[in-house]
Amino acid sequence: MTLEEIYGPVKDDLKLVEAMLGQIAGSDIPLLSDMLEFALLNVGKRLRPAVTLLSGKFYNYDLDLLVPMAAAAEVLHIGTLVHDDMIDSSAMRHGKQAVYRKYGVNNAILLGDYLFSRAGSLAAMTDNLRVIKRFSETLMTISGGELREGRVGFDPCSARDNYYQWIRDKTACLFVMAAECGSVLSGCPEGQVAALKDYALNFGLAFQIIDDILDFVGDQSILGKPIGSDLSEGAITLPSIIYSELNPSDSIISEIIIQRRKELVPQAVGKVRSSGVIDDCRKIAGQFYLKACNSLEKLPDCQARRSLAALAEFVIDREW
Amino acid sequence: MTLEEIYGPVKDDLKLVEAMLGQIAGSDIPLLSDMLEFALLNVGKRLRPAVTLLSGKFYNYDLDLLVPMAAAAEVLHIGTLVHDDMIDSSAMRHGKQAVYRKYGVNNAILLGDYLFSRAGSLAAMTDNLRVIKRFSETLMTISGGELREGRVGFDPCSARDNYYQWIRDKTACLFVMAAECGSVLSGCPEGQVAALKDYALNFGLAFQIIDDILDFVGDQSILGKPIGSDLSEGAITLPSIIYSELNPSDSIISEIIIQRRKELVPQAVGKVRSSGVIDDCRKIAGQFYLKACNSLEKLPDCQARRSLAALAEFVIDREW
Repeated sequence: MTLEEIYGPVKDDLKLVEAMLGQIAGSDIPLLSDMLEFALLNVGKRLRPAVTLLSGKFYNYDLDLLVPMAAAAEVLHIGTLVHDDMIDSSAMRHGKQAVYRKYGVNNAILLGDYLFSRAGSLAAMTDNLRVIKRFSETLMTISGGELREGRVGFDPCSARDNYYQWIRDKTACLFVMAAECGSVLSGCPEGQVAALKDYALNFGLAFQIIDDILDFVGDQSILGKPIGSDLSEGAITLPSIIYSELNPSDSIISEIIIQRRKELVPQAVGKVRSSGVIDDCRKIAGQFYLKACNSLEKLPDCQARRSLAALAEFVIDREW
Repeated sequence: MTLEEIYGPVKDDLKLVEAMLGQIAGSDIPLLSDMLEFALLNVGKRLRPAVTLLSGKFYNYDLDLLVPMAAAAEVLHIGTLVHDDMIDSSAMRHGKQAVYRKYGVNNAILLGDYLFSRAGSLAAMTDNLRVIKRFSETLMTISGGELREGRVGFDPCSARDNYYQWIRDKTACLFVMAAECGSVLSGCPEGQVAALKDYALNFGLAFQIIDDILDFVGDQSILGKPIGSDLSEGAITLPSIIYSELNPSDSIISEIIIQRRKELVPQAVGKVRSSGVIDDCRKIAGQFYLKACNSLEKLPDCQARRSLAALAEFVIDREW
């Protein structure tokens, strides 16, 4: 299935989200307007809005609430990317310059701050206190999580646990928010809200693991960023962790992470690729995918549920 | 009157705000906890919490709502300082190192993001949608405002207007939020909410003008940062603007701002100090102070109103 087919049940409504993002990009401050257009429009697959809308499809599907919420999820996501790219010194995003490279560090800090508050303002349009509170908590989780030790150090014994905690905080929690808010806004019973949150958590973990795999084996031109970026930026992800676990006498990963020996990155990428570790990672991502699908079983069978399942499969099989 | 006397009607309640800030500084993430303690505790005069609480004193003074709101105003304020110091390359804040100097730029970006979301979460504790919406809008105004052209360029014809817009966005709007939210949470009638907002706007403008004056004539050891910091950081404030207006043939200010000739800052500070411009600026601040006091006339006469008036006077006369 193509992404367009998967998005079928919410295809027209995603256009409303897109239109709202277009409105948001307008500002009476020319530099801000310019930056918003660059950062918000024609980027990404709009996965978080899609999860929000699809999660709202099971009960009372109210576009007046769901469209701003879907936009809030996307704007929050993009705000975190703007700051993350700066923190990670990533030069490219979605095949274009990172915002801080195009507009400078100071403007990128302010744009991120603006996007967070804009997203909060969109979430507040729902007039739903639970949704609004979940929104604030999500940004707390994302920014606080990045300050965990796991992000900078490398302790082989706790590396996997730290990694899962890290990707839960930085990636999965936003999908969880999207699913929870989408379903809560449609008046979904709590059991099914929980099922959708569980789906989103596992979906998010699988999504991030695939992301981290692609950083070793992906196609640079499709990804829009160089292979080995994570290691270059000092981020230790699942492939590096499993490689280090299986090869305790090979210190190449910790030399890159701790001694910042970036020149070793291509060699490390080669070692990981030829080691079979990538297959192990794919299996783990596959397990999270299965958990995500199992969670959906608790929901009524309908087109939206099939779309969520297909979306998880699409994400697992993706090359971008 | 001392600040302690002025804070009289809310003195004990400010201790509750302080205790809440202490709680917020606790986190299971050691680095985050460390940074929060450094940034949040034992800093500043807690002006924004005081304005929030005093504005809540006119009707139903409900500490369950006002204490989190007062903390939200302070946490939001400190979040903006954390990012601003980085953007302005300010080395010092409240007599200590700026957060980004002590913990690094990346951690400071994340701390600011965390503080914004934490503040949002505190505002959401009020369960009051108007308050929550005003909160998001305030951060939008602050971060968006910093992206206005006035911040970086220098056009003598529009300099004053740009300056007022800039200080309204960066400083006054947070006091306005504090006053509005404090009064709304106490069930204040709209006419009096408007009077308190008007007070806070003029209070905030006067406060910032005095801040900008002190950057020329203050005592470095009291301010906790070097004299001439604004010009060094490329910020053109009211004293520089009026000096340039009165001395159109002297290009020293634009040489500093546009050609980044920082070595001229001490000379420019000397010229501004000996020019009488500071007196002009004090008069303008005094006009905003009077407007603030006039706004208070629309409120019932009580200890809180007298404190707000005294606070405005205190701010006008301050040396910090």
